[in-house]
Amino acid sequence: MTDFRPVARTRQAVRDLLAGVDFPDVAVAVSGGADSLSLAAATVHVASRRRLTVHGLIVDHQLQPGSADVAATAAKQLHGLGVDDVRVLTVTVTGRGGPEAAARNARYAALRSAGFPIVLLGHTLDDQAETVLLGLGRGSGPRSIAGMRGLDLPWGRPFLSVPRVTTVAACDALGLTTWDDPHNVDPAYTRVRLRREVLPLLEDVLRGGVAPALARTAAQLREDTEALDTLSARLLTAALTEEELDAAVLSAEPPALRRRTVRRWLLDVGVPELTDAHLRSVDALIGEWRGQGAVWLPGNFAVGRARGRLRVTAWEPGEGTGCTATTSPPC
Amino acid sequence: MTDFRPVARTRQAVRDLLAGVDFPDVAVAVSGGADSLSLAAATVHVASRRRLTVHGLIVDHQLQPGSADVAATAAKQLHGLGVDDVRVLTVTVTGRGGPEAAARNARYAALRSAGFPIVLLGHTLDDQAETVLLGLGRGSGPRSIAGMRGLDLPWGRPFLSVPRVTTVAACDALGLTTWDDPHNVDPAYTRVRLRREVLPLLEDVLRGGVAPALARTAAQLREDTEALDTLSARLLTAALTEEELDAAVLSAEPPALRRRTVRRWLLDVGVPELTDAHLRSVDALIGEWRGQGAVWLPGNFAVGRARGRLRVTAWEPGEGTGCTATTSPPC
Repeated sequence: MTDFRPVARTRQAVRDLLAGVDFPDVAVAVSGGADSLSLAAATVHVASRRRLTVHGLIVDHQLQPGSADVAATAAKQLHGLGVDDVRVLTVTVTGRGGPEAAARNARYAALRSAGFPIVLLGHTLDDQAETVLLGLGRGSGPRSIAGMRGLDLPWGRPFLSVPRVTTVAACDALGLTTWDDPHNVDPAYTRVRLRREVLPLLEDVLRGGVAPALARTAAQLREDTEALDTLSARLLTAALTEEELDAAVLSAEPPALRRRTVRRWLLDVGVPELTDAHLRSVDALIGEWRGQGAVWLPGNFAVGRARGRLRVTAWEPGEGTGCTATTSPPC
Repeated sequence: MTDFRPVARTRQAVRDLLAGVDFPDVAVAVSGGADSLSLAAATVHVASRRRLTVHGLIVDHQLQPGSADVAATAAKQLHGLGVDDVRVLTVTVTGRGGPEAAARNARYAALRSAGFPIVLLGHTLDDQAETVLLGLGRGSGPRSIAGMRGLDLPWGRPFLSVPRVTTVAACDALGLTTWDDPHNVDPAYTRVRLRREVLPLLEDVLRGGVAPALARTAAQLREDTEALDTLSARLLTAALTEEELDAAVLSAEPPALRRRTVRRWLLDVGVPELTDAHLRSVDALIGEWRGQGAVWLPGNFAVGRARGRLRVTAWEPGEGTGCTATTSPPC
């Protein structure tokens, strides 16, 4: 007997996500794999009850021979599922950052330019776990391991708490033939090795439940990060007068909140990039003030403190004395 | 030619940690392994310049044949390094939670009861990376992957940014013979498999730098967590009047901060345990208030909202009507 519980679970996930938005149209990005086909099927089901128009978007990356056929097959399947409008977006993958990043950038750009207010993506709980592990390996802090957000318009990811096995089972139950992207088993891709080697080993060593654990941790980190972002935006508003920061307003706050506030202020002012070391040096002007000189930042910016206020100055090379900064410029 | 840079690095790490405290005595916990022996050597060096008395604490867990001999050898080595006072603490490992947890609990209890204001521990950057991975597998949120703190009195961990290879090289340079705990290669221990199987595979897949990346992420998470803890303590003070919480004070704050504040309030009141689901239900009384009934919590507690204030009530079974709660008790 066919088990329809996986189908019910995918539908519930789409229903939950769409409950939070109100658009007459919803687009679904489809590769032809189990994740996105089950997503399309669930979306058609949920949309028919909410009188939404479903648009199917298939990206042909033209990276493999026969990619046009794969796209045409997926298009046919979407028509068969009752998707109102199906489009194949053909892209040419170029650009920097390795093959995975280039394909992703091209895909997101094409999906975005289709112009829908919401585009559903089939990322599963397993994709989320892989994303967290990738972020951990970069070591660039909580933001990089907070994973993907469920709703980040135009993107909607209803399946972040649905395991991949459920999408496969849903397609089985619905009699949908899925396409297995050969890239998904190519060990040249970091994500493939995380999925096929690291996560199974971690499952074994930690005795199961690793993917849901990573996804849960990601969700909590995202909420913590959003809280600190909200609080630092509020603190910036309170501390800022005529582009200067009041050190006294900031000094009573915890260091991690102060540094976030300083970061937002400096990026707004136009400083092109900031390392953790830069932020700590600027923060020392607030938290460990003993009359020290200005802090030099990328893009020929400097931050100094005078009369209890932090101020950014820009140093323009070749302009008169070459120096408009307040203290000890490197010239 | 002997390379003394590893020795210099261990000394600098101890110097940095001790710069933040001011005690006349410092204890070092020593197993006889490379991490703790190099720590003891570095501490003796730094202490001699700061006129501190160094105490060596060796825990004999009595878990392996010959453990007393291992302890005696370590004691001899500490005397040789110039440690002022050496004690062997013999413990009996019993208790719940598996062999690793039981041994750890017995060890920390013995070290704490020695009564020193600061006890240095030899945990390295690799230990920190393993701790983060263990926490990830539990999925119990940012706190569990924030890893160990450098200074958490009486505990001090100067080596959290020093790799294990550096402690081994430091012992080599100093001519110290180290003891290799057979437990460190026993795959029955989760931590051993993380160290010997998972981390090397992650290193390979993510192309190196995983342990420092995990340690960096842990450090940032710890600072974020501390910031949110500070802010929630402040918010609790602002919102609390006669054991009741003012919903209006909390409602303007981000959900993650509100839930932390509610958690602290409820634990202070005596609620024995709280899941994320409990906290979200109580928080809905603040953020999604539509006149709903009380929320039931473990330990026969309930939280309800009346006149804009949250209040905890306790339900005592068998007391008169059995109910002292304000709304719909389960009786």
